[in-house]
Amino acid sequence: MTDEFSIAACSRGLAARRFSARELIEASLERIAQRRELNCFISVLADRARADAEDADRRRAQGRSLGPLDGVPIGVKDNIDVAGSPATAGMATRRGHVPPQDAFCVAKLRAQGAIIIGKTNLHEAALGATSDNPHYGRCFNPHGASRTPGGSSGGSAAAVAAGLVPGALGTDTMGSIRIPASYCGAVGLKPTYGLVSNGGVCYVSWRLDHVGPLARSVEDAGLLLDGMAGFDPDCPDSRRAAARRPLGRRLGVLRNFEATAVAPAVREAFDRALGVPDRMGYRVETVEIPGYDPAYARRCGLLMVEADAALVHEKDLAGRPELFSDEARAMLDYGRRASAAKLAKAERVVVLAATGARRLLEELDALVSPTTPQTAFVFGEPVPDSQGDFTALANFAGCPAISVPMGADPAGMPIGLQLVGAPWSERGLLEIARSFERATRT
Amino acid sequence: MTDEFSIAACSRGLAARRFSARELIEASLERIAQRRELNCFISVLADRARADAEDADRRRAQGRSLGPLDGVPIGVKDNIDVAGSPATAGMATRRGHVPPQDAFCVAKLRAQGAIIIGKTNLHEAALGATSDNPHYGRCFNPHGASRTPGGSSGGSAAAVAAGLVPGALGTDTMGSIRIPASYCGAVGLKPTYGLVSNGGVCYVSWRLDHVGPLARSVEDAGLLLDGMAGFDPDCPDSRRAAARRPLGRRLGVLRNFEATAVAPAVREAFDRALGVPDRMGYRVETVEIPGYDPAYARRCGLLMVEADAALVHEKDLAGRPELFSDEARAMLDYGRRASAAKLAKAERVVVLAATGARRLLEELDALVSPTTPQTAFVFGEPVPDSQGDFTALANFAGCPAISVPMGADPAGMPIGLQLVGAPWSERGLLEIARSFERATRT
Repeated sequence: MTDEFSIAACSRGLAARRFSARELIEASLERIAQRRELNCFISVLADRARADAEDADRRRAQGRSLGPLDGVPIGVKDNIDVAGSPATAGMATRRGHVPPQDAFCVAKLRAQGAIIIGKTNLHEAALGATSDNPHYGRCFNPHGASRTPGGSSGGSAAAVAAGLVPGALGTDTMGSIRIPASYCGAVGLKPTYGLVSNGGVCYVSWRLDHVGPLARSVEDAGLLLDGMAGFDPDCPDSRRAAARRPLGRRLGVLRNFEATAVAPAVREAFDRALGVPDRMGYRVETVEIPGYDPAYARRCGLLMVEADAALVHEKDLAGRPELFSDEARAMLDYGRRASAAKLAKAERVVVLAATGARRLLEELDALVSPTTPQTAFVFGEPVPDSQGDFTALANFAGCPAISVPMGADPAGMPIGLQLVGAPWSERGLLEIARSFERATRT
Repeated sequence: MTDEFSIAACSRGLAARRFSARELIEASLERIAQRRELNCFISVLADRARADAEDADRRRAQGRSLGPLDGVPIGVKDNIDVAGSPATAGMATRRGHVPPQDAFCVAKLRAQGAIIIGKTNLHEAALGATSDNPHYGRCFNPHGASRTPGGSSGGSAAAVAAGLVPGALGTDTMGSIRIPASYCGAVGLKPTYGLVSNGGVCYVSWRLDHVGPLARSVEDAGLLLDGMAGFDPDCPDSRRAAARRPLGRRLGVLRNFEATAVAPAVREAFDRALGVPDRMGYRVETVEIPGYDPAYARRCGLLMVEADAALVHEKDLAGRPELFSDEARAMLDYGRRASAAKLAKAERVVVLAATGARRLLEELDALVSPTTPQTAFVFGEPVPDSQGDFTALANFAGCPAISVPMGADPAGMPIGLQLVGAPWSERGLLEIARSFERATRT
């Protein structure tokens, strides 16, 4: 079995017949069982995965392999539908909810032979960033037993970082793929709005949610993204991919982010990382979005999220409010009860930030920043408000954004570097991310 | 002086030295004075216009004419800033408000020699479609003394239709350019969202408002649009124009509009107009936006408008509420007091309609319909709720939309035909509109 347990390595090993898909699935199931204390999975689909692996091996034996994902085990965040398996979204209201159909992106991955090995744990309703789930148990960061993996896609990030699966799907409303990627030392990619269908996803906000990959390398994130992207005529928020513009070798550092307090180790890692572009032949410029206050805009985005999510869970909130945690219910109630004028004002703030980011990215290849201002904290410590200060902007703007590891703090907690590109610039962004990955890999 | 008093005719006459700009301005001022009872203007800028005309004549004499708009008199809706002149937006709160700078689009027109001859009357705060203004007086339809010109750009449409000015600017949130164009027998064009800057406009909703031309012909509307369009770095909603796709000679009729009751004369005129595309070599297809209910979506849009407008007038609403009419205050108060969840739900309805329209327009050159379900009604009669049922969709989708005259009802009231195209398809849309104009001109 491969040491690295990456998608690319699994794919190469399968192609070279060094191991079978069935062996790969067994290895993944064994790793999941060995690290059960991390509580990465809400359900493990062992029987189905074994049967799928046998199909994959049969195809390969007949020379009909479906490509690089054929036979590779993947975790799927439990707010994304996998036909015939529970999809709880981390909520008590959805306990026992078994969708009849795969989400569009899951069906796409399956059609390419990817094997769904389990449904990963998450923050309740994907409405938070600790993955301290009151209904399905706390999920832990593999880098420190008492630490949060971040969230809301905590299970996916922890499973990938712990080497339980080579890749997993997450969803990201204001940072829910990139924050746990940063905290766990994984790569997390939030694609351009509309590139991956939200069909079959229990999303938080139709306008801010994005499905994307968590993986062990930039290369793997690209492979997984290719497998899940595509226009879905049944998803109103799905878009046909547009042409990307050529690269200009210019990166921007947002002056607006200076207002957010950043942990010293994160600051040092970021300063070191800023030496990389120079060696790549990239220019780094300080840029600014007029009037954009990251903390205020994040709070405005949160009101949009709360109002949109209150719609998603409207019936259960009215009929079974006792099934929500106090925290989740308070957020959704706030979304219901705030005034329309307050929401309209919040939306304007968010759109102005988004427009500012997109305008900068007409000239720059990417905006570069730490992914999060801090590293994974110990459960029980106060949750830092600023977790999403650097990530939310890409959701507002619908821009692709990736988090790649850039070292660790003195406690060994991973630090993430974020790159945000113009809409539809995924290819270019992945290229830049690979350069950083090579340079900052510890 | 030209009989037609169109922009193109004025332009040709000036170029051929058949009359001077100064004579043209005098003619326009005389017409305005003769039809004072229509109450089309809140202020007439006679002195400034005369001085500007003398400049235009001097330039022309020196062979330095600035193009087709140089020396042509234009009306500007009074919610659009003209430096040094009052800009009331039809509101008592803004009586005596004199902006120091031209709106971006006005400055563009001025730079091409267009002469602003006056500020046109409108519905209070541009929040309604009768132009029965409680502060600056009722504006009348030139086709019937007791009839509404529609609104909110009633003064601009009436002034153009009555031949007081060859062109005028309006703003359109859910139909406020096209409804009065339809009622008055003028051409009204709402451009693609972002093509014309909202800089210096007292808008209703930053996300639904569009500045555009009212004119006597499709050709004139195109000339005026060319003069006012352009990227404005200081307006966050301004966009760089994108390439338009080629025409495919397919038009769509929305089945969704069948739910709206249409006056018999409008129905007959529209049925006759549907014979035109066939003669142009265009195919007409019946199409549908899944789940789109025009009346419900229009009400949802109205909530967005009310919430956004409540922000625009936040200070005055709090400090000087007595200066608003009961009607306007009630709308703005509703926007303030409705719940965020209600607004979020409305926004989703509007975005789904918008996505549906844009998807249809990936295949079709235009959606064709009557502009309004009825013709101009007598002041005092109940205001039909359905006035904006056919127009609001283009605002939701950010698509360009034009209203061209297609005959009149038995009372002599003009009927309008609406064409809605894909974003940035103005050129193609104007071409199609010209074909209809030629065929339906009475």
